[in-house]
Amino acid sequence: MEKIELPGGAAREPQTTTGGSGACEGRRVRRHDPERRTRILDAALDVLVTDGAAGITHRKVAACADVPLGSVTYHFSSLAELQAKAFAWYVEQRTAEFEHLFTQVATHEDLIEILVDLVQGGPSRRHSAVLGFELHLAALRNPALRALTQQWTTDSRAVLARFTGPEIAGRLDALLEGLIMHALLATEPEPRERTRAAIVQGLAPVTGWGE
Amino acid sequence: MEKIELPGGAAREPQTTTGGSGACEGRRVRRHDPERRTRILDAALDVLVTDGAAGITHRKVAACADVPLGSVTYHFSSLAELQAKAFAWYVEQRTAEFEHLFTQVATHEDLIEILVDLVQGGPSRRHSAVLGFELHLAALRNPALRALTQQWTTDSRAVLARFTGPEIAGRLDALLEGLIMHALLATEPEPRERTRAAIVQGLAPVTGWGE
Repeated sequence: MEKIELPGGAAREPQTTTGGSGACEGRRVRRHDPERRTRILDAALDVLVTDGAAGITHRKVAACADVPLGSVTYHFSSLAELQAKAFAWYVEQRTAEFEHLFTQVATHEDLIEILVDLVQGGPSRRHSAVLGFELHLAALRNPALRALTQQWTTDSRAVLARFTGPEIAGRLDALLEGLIMHALLATEPEPRERTRAAIVQGLAPVTGWGE
Repeated sequence: MEKIELPGGAAREPQTTTGGSGACEGRRVRRHDPERRTRILDAALDVLVTDGAAGITHRKVAACADVPLGSVTYHFSSLAELQAKAFAWYVEQRTAEFEHLFTQVATHEDLIEILVDLVQGGPSRRHSAVLGFELHLAALRNPALRALTQQWTTDSRAVLARFTGPEIAGRLDALLEGLIMHALLATEPEPRERTRAAIVQGLAPVTGWGE
């Protein structure tokens, strides 16, 4: 089926084409682009960062993507669909990034260093972390989104399992999730050596303590 | 200073006294109670569960607490203050609950079982988990709230450290955070034995693997 752009609200609402949200200001204006659907999803993610799942609207996304309102409603007729597809697009990118991280791992030491870097990543990934937290929260409220969070977890574990086996990968993934959250929300950075010790221990096989 | 209840908006807005939010319906109506401030904070937490940090207003909280609007604005003049104090009240209760969990722990086996129960707690604590996620997200967006998330982490670790020492407590706390999140968002429950194995391993001292 051909995709047809409906005549949108932009002509009637010129103020929205300047971008309605601070997160959108750096977005390049391309009025005739073949990947408009992806641009709309990128814009939806920017709006989710700024305004949260509760604040997203077709209008804000159209302004942020610099496309007519009708283009957003054409591609994503309901807000629930727009939000779900935007989160799915976020997870797809995060999973690809996560997989890419490990392409150079040749030794156990490489693996440890990459995981320590992942946890200690610093504030540069705060934008992405906000989206992850928004997705977690949205999925907690809406079970329909849990297929996506489950897929994300399954894919992350599968990447880790190539190096650790499935048993360790499951708990290592949980440990990384908690360490990253604590690192993002801490008032003082955790010393690198402590993060390293936690990961080294998380990679270890089960020992007899407490059994 | 005496606390004086200002004449509020309730008389002019009788519809709000029935509770504006589904989460508030079970709230007992007590018009002359000495602990109004706490009731307002409880109501604020109910509104945060239903509408999120982006959706909280003095008016919704007043309706949910069944108090005049002026009472809410008297106790918490700004929305930021209301939200911060509500989150602090949530953390205070969660920390007390967490501490209470361990009062009966006599053996390592007790400790393991209690931690497995904590992770496998099931959907009954979804209400509380939504608030935890809302706080994490709010603190990610607003550094002023990170003193509270840091305090929560510090207090949780201190409870665990009584049994494990501080080094293990830090990473165990992160592991629990990740395991609980995965348990809440999974489409299929994790087998109890797998959760148990992850916790047993998380309690173990650092071994030489990968070092």
